[in-house]
Amino acid sequence: MIRIIGFDADDTLWHNENIFARAHEGYRRLLARYHPAAEVDRVLFATEMRNLPLYGYGIKGFTLSSVEAAIELTGGEASAQEIREIIATGREMLAHPVELLAGVADVVPALARDYRLLLITKGDLHHQERKVAASGLAGYFQAVEILSEKDGPAYERVLRRHGVALAEFAMVGNSLKSDILPVLQLGGAGVHVPYHITWQHEHVEDMPGDLPRFRRIGSLAELPALLPHL
Amino acid sequence: MIRIIGFDADDTLWHNENIFARAHEGYRRLLARYHPAAEVDRVLFATEMRNLPLYGYGIKGFTLSSVEAAIELTGGEASAQEIREIIATGREMLAHPVELLAGVADVVPALARDYRLLLITKGDLHHQERKVAASGLAGYFQAVEILSEKDGPAYERVLRRHGVALAEFAMVGNSLKSDILPVLQLGGAGVHVPYHITWQHEHVEDMPGDLPRFRRIGSLAELPALLPHL
Repeated sequence: MIRIIGFDADDTLWHNENIFARAHEGYRRLLARYHPAAEVDRVLFATEMRNLPLYGYGIKGFTLSSVEAAIELTGGEASAQEIREIIATGREMLAHPVELLAGVADVVPALARDYRLLLITKGDLHHQERKVAASGLAGYFQAVEILSEKDGPAYERVLRRHGVALAEFAMVGNSLKSDILPVLQLGGAGVHVPYHITWQHEHVEDMPGDLPRFRRIGSLAELPALLPHL
Repeated sequence: MIRIIGFDADDTLWHNENIFARAHEGYRRLLARYHPAAEVDRVLFATEMRNLPLYGYGIKGFTLSSVEAAIELTGGEASAQEIREIIATGREMLAHPVELLAGVADVVPALARDYRLLLITKGDLHHQERKVAASGLAGYFQAVEILSEKDGPAYERVLRRHGVALAEFAMVGNSLKSDILPVLQLGGAGVHVPYHITWQHEHVEDMPGDLPRFRRIGSLAELPALLPHL
């Protein structure tokens, strides 16, 4: 039944949130003499959310919000050296090597023999393209779609462009909000592979009850055996 | 002969470099007590070029480079207030209304009746999408292609995806480097519409001599009359 598989990239094929988690730790240390960690986190997240309509997703916007929040959190006392450290962290995040998740290097090539694979990711065009190239996986995907948002209309546009019927489509990813729910709502199948960290912005409070085409697996290694039953 | 027209966006359909020029003026004023304008410009451009492989094009990367260069130019003495001003300028640039160039609001709808139009732009996905939406022109374009780089291979991929024959294709834009030369080299036609400011990075020293499919016009209003002769 399933002939086309859409893969999310960050935290589905390769690690991403762990890079942000390390940046957050450094940020809390930098500001520890001004505020407890919870307050640092609160102000940074509020700044990110306020800037999201203008910046969109990605590390450059995160870094700009981190500088802005640091100036706010220090009451305008942040030093140029502290700002420089935040900017340097952003550069390190962007330059971080792509580390595939367990099983990905085997599962993606194996599935590419029997299915059409699409990579469907959101965020910064330049950085996502660099990560796809560095991953060594680009050749297994029929197309790479980098979107500014992954919602119902965005999925509809992509699937229409590639002539994909929803009955034959499964989306695989770590975000219920961006990878699973919009696809289920359109009538496709959704396979949730949780990552051990979920960004607060991707958090889903309540999943709807009756979702016959929804599955959850612990690792991508379980995906090939699951697909014939979707 | 020409059936499909590719349009660049920034400084071809709407103003862009004038927004950067105003930001540069403010940046020079901010740092005037440390360095003459020429030195400020030199260090900022060098910082931008060093970061380009990591940041790609766009205002967020420009803003991050501006902060980094300000810290360097002040020998680490830049105040949080000065950094805040640079970040605020970046936000204003991203929020700046889209101002169409003269003639665009008439020429694009008129050409859309007789030609297939593609919008082919580079830079930040999120910001470019927002500008296309705000321009009011989206409906005249059969597709909007936002690329991380506009070189020969990138044009080839786009034209192949849309089934465009190079003999029938003209690219219209303000950048010889990004809009005209790669398309001429592939065998398409190139119509150069200079903007009154060219970013140093897009500067082309010498144009090749014999370019039968190259034209230059002073304004987009001249384009409809030119197209039958390309």
